[in-house]
Amino acid sequence: MSSSINFKNILVVGVGLIGGSIIRALKESSFSGGVYGIDSDKKAVTSAYDLGFIRNKDTNIPKDLDDLLVIFSVPVLSIQEAVSQINIMINTKNVIYTDTLSVKSSILNTLKALDKTVLKRFVLSHPIAGSEQSGFKASSATLFKEKLSIICPHEDNSEQDVSKIEDFWKALGSYTKKLSANDHDELFGKTSHMPHVIAYALMDSLYQDLGEKTFLYSGGSLEDYTRIASSDPIMWKDIMVSNDKSILSSIESFKRSLDELSELIGTNNATGLIEFFSTVKNARDKSISGKED
Amino acid sequence: MSSSINFKNILVVGVGLIGGSIIRALKESSFSGGVYGIDSDKKAVTSAYDLGFIRNKDTNIPKDLDDLLVIFSVPVLSIQEAVSQINIMINTKNVIYTDTLSVKSSILNTLKALDKTVLKRFVLSHPIAGSEQSGFKASSATLFKEKLSIICPHEDNSEQDVSKIEDFWKALGSYTKKLSANDHDELFGKTSHMPHVIAYALMDSLYQDLGEKTFLYSGGSLEDYTRIASSDPIMWKDIMVSNDKSILSSIESFKRSLDELSELIGTNNATGLIEFFSTVKNARDKSISGKED
Repeated sequence: MSSSINFKNILVVGVGLIGGSIIRALKESSFSGGVYGIDSDKKAVTSAYDLGFIRNKDTNIPKDLDDLLVIFSVPVLSIQEAVSQINIMINTKNVIYTDTLSVKSSILNTLKALDKTVLKRFVLSHPIAGSEQSGFKASSATLFKEKLSIICPHEDNSEQDVSKIEDFWKALGSYTKKLSANDHDELFGKTSHMPHVIAYALMDSLYQDLGEKTFLYSGGSLEDYTRIASSDPIMWKDIMVSNDKSILSSIESFKRSLDELSELIGTNNATGLIEFFSTVKNARDKSISGKED
Repeated sequence: MSSSINFKNILVVGVGLIGGSIIRALKESSFSGGVYGIDSDKKAVTSAYDLGFIRNKDTNIPKDLDDLLVIFSVPVLSIQEAVSQINIMINTKNVIYTDTLSVKSSILNTLKALDKTVLKRFVLSHPIAGSEQSGFKASSATLFKEKLSIICPHEDNSEQDVSKIEDFWKALGSYTKKLSANDHDELFGKTSHMPHVIAYALMDSLYQDLGEKTFLYSGGSLEDYTRIASSDPIMWKDIMVSNDKSILSSIESFKRSLDELSELIGTNNATGLIEFFSTVKNARDKSISGKED
């Protein structure tokens, strides 16, 4: 069951992979309001206009867009500047804000240091959808279909605004769950940011050892396993810096497990290895079937 | 262009994921000779017989199969016992042997300590195809299609035997490359065994920290990233023990890269992080496009 979008106008700030996918999905949805998009890359805006996804062909956005949703889809550390720019561009009377970023606590702290009006009407969200590719050219109308979107309400949000943001993501095909900003960052530090750390470190060490022969005999699965190391460097620099504590704690936890396994391999401890692998296999199989229940 | 299979009879020892996929692929190929299969799991043999993939319905294999290829698809550390058993079961006059295992040097050393006749006619091979699933029920006739199969000829092999094994894999849809057993183990220690070490260690640390909530908010990509931690524990215990030196050296190399990255995150070194991620991304993108040339 798809929900309806309870806004008259939508402005997407940053029409890269995620922002671009939002305007594409809106085009294919039943939404009949105004869709606008801005980006520091003028070509992306022109492409989106030429394809009929947005109403503006340059940075001239009508100042008085009524009943507006502004969606920030910029690198994490650009949020403060992006919010300030938008508040100069538009009349902020009847606006709700959200974002699509991978880190939540640092965004919330940034907002708290800004205008209280913005904070109150800013409902943090994070669609768990992405790719190692980036930019408008990689965007897709179906990126959010059947994907989870996390909503992180904070104490200054109204229930009504939170519901409108939930409905928005549902209308794009997502299902939603709520988490606090802190819980979000701790969890995604482990389950998303940590795999990126690993992929970058693995790819770095492989290339140092094997150079361009890395993939020559690998047959595909190594390509999959290192795919996220081709992600956007700026985006991931921002995430690492903004969620550093949670990521560093995940690295320590991971290194303890890695050292335990190394020890078992180094001592050729057959019984210990079978026990380690069986326990991990059972844990994974159990957690995944738990998810599907 | 598919090659033809230059044997009259084929005996697969171990009809699990890989061995099972071989007999399924043979059924769908133009091979009209005799196909036989044995396994310590009697049910697998019965299933394969009932499905018409093999001629034997129990362990009674004709002793005098002429022009025979024996394929060992058992856990690495079971190879010695499997070879000895087969040599009791069959007349070894006109037999070529191969295997499908993920480690090559330790197999070669095992063979060197056995009968010289077997060593001479044993052409080591390794189809780079697999899955975190195991057993005959997970096998597939198309598992080897367009996949790489590595052949590791050794000094006692004849060129003719090596060619026949290459042709066999080509007939099953693979393309082939040759590597020495040592080069194979060093390379796959890094590009295949190491990702398994990482997946097991990551899954272990995640489950310790998050328990059954591990996948609750993860949206799919973490499932992919930990998939190989659901692999068969016995098979992977054997690989870790048999290729321990290469794997331990890969772990050290990986830990150096991980420590470098941790340091950049811990000091919020934005410039250093962008440089690290960009260098790794370029290395990956370049190595992969090099592969496709």
